[in-house]
Amino acid sequence: MTISDEFHVYDTTLRDGAQQEGLALSVADKIAIAQYLDELGVGFIEGGWPGAVPKDTEFFERAKTELHLRNATFAAFGATCKPGTTAADDPQVAALRESGADVVTLVAKSHDAHVERALRTSLDENLRMITDTVSHLRANGQRVFLDTEHFFDGYRANRAYALEVVRAAAAAGADVVALCDTNGGTLPRELQEIVRDVLESTGARLGIHCHNDAGCAVANSIAAVEAGVTHVQGTVNGYGERTGNADLLAIVANLELKRGLQLLPPGNLAESFRTAHAIAEVTNVPPSARQPYVGVSAFAHKAGLHASAIKVDPDLYQHTDPGLVGNDMRMLVSEMAGRASIELKGRELGFDLGNDRELVSRVADRVKEMEARGYTFEAADASFELLLTEEVEGKRPCYFDVESWRVITESRADGEAVSESTVKLVAGGEREIVTGEGNGPVNALDHALRVAIERAYPVVNKFDLVDYKVRILDQGHGTDAVIRVLIETADGEGSWVTVGVGHNIVEASWEALVDGFTFGLLRHKEVVR
Amino acid sequence: MTISDEFHVYDTTLRDGAQQEGLALSVADKIAIAQYLDELGVGFIEGGWPGAVPKDTEFFERAKTELHLRNATFAAFGATCKPGTTAADDPQVAALRESGADVVTLVAKSHDAHVERALRTSLDENLRMITDTVSHLRANGQRVFLDTEHFFDGYRANRAYALEVVRAAAAAGADVVALCDTNGGTLPRELQEIVRDVLESTGARLGIHCHNDAGCAVANSIAAVEAGVTHVQGTVNGYGERTGNADLLAIVANLELKRGLQLLPPGNLAESFRTAHAIAEVTNVPPSARQPYVGVSAFAHKAGLHASAIKVDPDLYQHTDPGLVGNDMRMLVSEMAGRASIELKGRELGFDLGNDRELVSRVADRVKEMEARGYTFEAADASFELLLTEEVEGKRPCYFDVESWRVITESRADGEAVSESTVKLVAGGEREIVTGEGNGPVNALDHALRVAIERAYPVVNKFDLVDYKVRILDQGHGTDAVIRVLIETADGEGSWVTVGVGHNIVEASWEALVDGFTFGLLRHKEVVR
Repeated sequence: MTISDEFHVYDTTLRDGAQQEGLALSVADKIAIAQYLDELGVGFIEGGWPGAVPKDTEFFERAKTELHLRNATFAAFGATCKPGTTAADDPQVAALRESGADVVTLVAKSHDAHVERALRTSLDENLRMITDTVSHLRANGQRVFLDTEHFFDGYRANRAYALEVVRAAAAAGADVVALCDTNGGTLPRELQEIVRDVLESTGARLGIHCHNDAGCAVANSIAAVEAGVTHVQGTVNGYGERTGNADLLAIVANLELKRGLQLLPPGNLAESFRTAHAIAEVTNVPPSARQPYVGVSAFAHKAGLHASAIKVDPDLYQHTDPGLVGNDMRMLVSEMAGRASIELKGRELGFDLGNDRELVSRVADRVKEMEARGYTFEAADASFELLLTEEVEGKRPCYFDVESWRVITESRADGEAVSESTVKLVAGGEREIVTGEGNGPVNALDHALRVAIERAYPVVNKFDLVDYKVRILDQGHGTDAVIRVLIETADGEGSWVTVGVGHNIVEASWEALVDGFTFGLLRHKEVVR
Repeated sequence: MTISDEFHVYDTTLRDGAQQEGLALSVADKIAIAQYLDELGVGFIEGGWPGAVPKDTEFFERAKTELHLRNATFAAFGATCKPGTTAADDPQVAALRESGADVVTLVAKSHDAHVERALRTSLDENLRMITDTVSHLRANGQRVFLDTEHFFDGYRANRAYALEVVRAAAAAGADVVALCDTNGGTLPRELQEIVRDVLESTGARLGIHCHNDAGCAVANSIAAVEAGVTHVQGTVNGYGERTGNADLLAIVANLELKRGLQLLPPGNLAESFRTAHAIAEVTNVPPSARQPYVGVSAFAHKAGLHASAIKVDPDLYQHTDPGLVGNDMRMLVSEMAGRASIELKGRELGFDLGNDRELVSRVADRVKEMEARGYTFEAADASFELLLTEEVEGKRPCYFDVESWRVITESRADGEAVSESTVKLVAGGEREIVTGEGNGPVNALDHALRVAIERAYPVVNKFDLVDYKVRILDQGHGTDAVIRVLIETADGEGSWVTVGVGHNIVEASWEALVDGFTFGLLRHKEVVR
C-alpha cells in the first residue's frame, strides 16, 4: 500500500503529543504506538527528537532494527543549528543526520521577537541557520520539512520577516513549510487569511500545525486545508502540552467524511476507533468518552424522547454513520427511559423483548424506581443486563449464597491504615469463610470474595477490578447522604460496569462488587454449581 | 448590574448540559449551579424542561422562592404544542406558562424529514404549532426564543422550509431564533454560509447552538457570530450529550479577548476559572485538565526548555494572560502554589507573612508537595490554615493524642449494613476508649471521636459534619487509586472545610475528620487541656 504524497497526514503523537503533562512514554511504548499508527495508514510518524532527548535517541537507534513500518515514513524532529555554528559542525544536527529517519522536520524561529530574545541572535543569522541546516540535510539525502514556530504571532508582529523565513526554507529545499500556531491562540478566520497570504506570496508547499488553546485546533486545521495547505500535523487523542495538539483523527474524519478527500488508505478510517483506544491503553491516559468520532460516548443517545425515531432512521440523529470510524451507536437507559429505549437496549444486549409489552413495562418501572433511589443504568450496562435477565427468566442469576460479610479498617502504628475483610458464603455446595486484606475496605472485600468463590468458579481469577467511582448523591447531607458506587471489572477480553447504592459506602460497594462477579460468571456462561 | 440585551450569553448547562451521560443533577445541584452562573454574569440561564422532566418541574417550583438571580434571566425550555392540539390546550405548554420563568425557549422542528417522520405531521401543521405556541406565550407576557432543531441539516435538505420556520417564529413574536446544529456535524465554512443566508433572507435576530461532534463547536459558534448572530448558547465545561455542547466560557473568552467584544459584565471574565471548577465540584464530573482557558493545564508549561524565557516574557509563550480568565501560569516542575499566592492567602487568613521570605517559601514548598500527592487547599481553607499555623508557630495545633482507631462494617440479617467504630485517645489528661455507631464508616468514626473528646472539650457538641465529598483522583487504577475527601463541619455560626488524602478511603476520611475537629477547637480558641 503506497501512501500518496499529495496530502500528508503527519502524526506527531510521539513528539509533540508526548509533551502532555503526565505522559511518560518508554521506548517500548513508542514502538507499540508507532506500529498502531502505521497500521492506521498515516503518512508520517514523527518519532521524537534524537540528540536532544535521550530516550528519543535510544528510540531512533532501536527503531532501525525493531520498528517495521509498512506504510508510514519515519520522521525525526529537531532544531536548526545553533547561532554561530554551521550545520555540519552542530552535534544535534549530526544526530538528525544519523537518526536513520528518511524525513527530518526542523523547527525554526519565525517570530522576530523569539529570534532576538529567546535565541538571542540576529534576524539574518536565523535565516542563515535555516538555509544551512535544510541544505545540509538535503545533501545528506534526507527529505526535509520545516516547522515555523510561533508563525501566526510572528506574522502579525513582522509579516515580512515571517514570509522571508518561509521562502528561505523552501529555497533551501524544504519540501513542506508547516506553519505552527504554537501558542494555539489564533482563530480560524485570521488563520485562514494568513495562510492564503503566505501561499500567494511564497508559493511554497504549506503545512499546518495547531494547538487547542482557543478550542479551535481542528477547525483551524480544516480552515488551513481550505486555504490550500496539503500537510496536516496533529496527534491521536489530541495529546499535547497545555490544551493539546490538534486531534488528528477528528481532522482526518472530517475531511474524508464531509469534504470527500481520501487521506488514509481506502477503508482505513474505520480503524480510527480501535487505533485511538489501543494507543490510549499504551499511554495509560484514559481517553475522553466525549472525544469526537472515537469517544465511547460520541454516538451515545439519551433515549426516551426520540428512541422510536432513532429506530426508524439513525441518520436523523447522527451526523455520520459511526461504523465509518469504527464506532457504535449506543442507547443510554436513563431517567427518560421509556418502553422504546428499554426494547432497543434489550436488543443491543441480545434480548428480544419486542413481543412482551408487559415485561417491557415492568422493566421500565423497575428502572425508574431504582433510578429515583440513586441507581444509574446509563453507566452500568452489566447491572441493567442482570436486571433484564432477572425479569426475563423470573429470577436473578445467583452463583453463590452470601451468609455475611464484614470489613474492618484500622490505624497502624506507622500511620498507614489497613483493611481486612471476612466473607462467609456457600458456593458449589461448600461453605467458605475467607479473610482478605487490602489497602482499603473495597479492595479487602474484593480479595476475600474472589478467594471465596474461586474454588467453585476458577474463572474469577481472570477478573480484575479496574475502576472504582464514588458519588455522594445528595451533597449537603453529611454522612446521611445516599452514595452511589460504580465498579468496572475486566477479564482480559473486555470489561463491564456494575452499580451499588446505599447510605453506607461499604455496603454500596459490596453490592456493585457482587454484581460485578455475578455478571462476569454469567458472561462466561458459568453454570450454577 | 444590568446585563445588556445586545448580545446574549445563553447558558444551557442545566438543560442540554444535563443530558451528558452520567450526569444526574439534583434540584439542590441545579440551584447551586444557577447561583454560580448568575455570579459569573451570563445573560440567561436555561433551567430545564418543566412539565416534561419531573425533577425540572420541581426545580422551577422551588426556584420561585429559593433561587435569587441578580443578573441572569431565568429561562424555561420546552417544545411547541403537539400536532393537532392548540397551545392553549396543551398541558406541557401550560407548564411553561406557569413555570415562573421570564423567558421560554421553545424547540421546534425545522427539518422536513423530522416533521414528517419523527413528529408524524405535515409541514404546515408544524408551522401552525410554532406560530400558535409562540404567540400564546407572548400573550401571556413571557419573552420567547425559538430553537430550530436540526437546522443546518434541515436547511440542506429543504432550504425553503427551514427559512419558513425561521420567519414563522419571528413573525409570531420570537425575539431570537437560535439555529441549532443538533447533530453537531456541520463544519464552520458551511455553517457560516448558511447563517449569512438565513440572516439575509429573513432579517430575524439569530442565535446559535452548536454541538462538538466534529470537534468544531467553539469555532462554529464564533463563525456564526462573525456572520451576524447575537445570541450564543453553550454549556460550562462543554457538558452535553455525546461529545458535548459548545464550551460557553471558551467562546466568551475568545470573543472578549481576541475580538474585543464585552459579553460578560466588565471584569467578570476573570471569574471563569473559579466558576468552571465550582460547577464541576457540584456535578462531580472531574473537569478536563486540558480544557481551553480554564483547565488546570491550560497554561502549564513544561519548564526547562523555555523557563528563563517565560520569566522574561510570558507573552512569548502564551496566547493570552491567564489571569484574565482567573487561571494561572504553571511551570510543570511544580504545582500551582507560588510565593505570591501564599502571601495573599495568608493575609486573607490573618497572618502577616510579608517579612518572612523563608517562611513563605517553606509553606509554598509544602503546599506543592502535598498537592502533588492529591491534596487541594483551594477548597479546604481550614486545612491550609492549620498548615500555616504549624509553620508559623513551629508545631501543629494538637488537642488530643490519637492512640488508635478502627471501624468495622458488617452486613446484618435484614440486608442493611451497620458500621461501628472504636477510637482510643488521650484528651485533657485522660485516656478515652469510645465506641460509636453509624450508618457508614465515616459517620461511625465521627460519633466515636466526638464522644471521645467532648469531656475535655464540651464545645464539640456544637460541631456538625454537614458535608462529605469523595473524589477518586486517578481514575482507572481500580482500588489502588488515590482518594481525596473533603469534610465540611459547621458550628452554628459558620463552617469550615478540611481535606484528607490516601489510598484508603476510611483513612483519608479520618484525616479530614480529625483536622475538622482540630480546626473547630482552634477557631473557638480552645486551650489544649
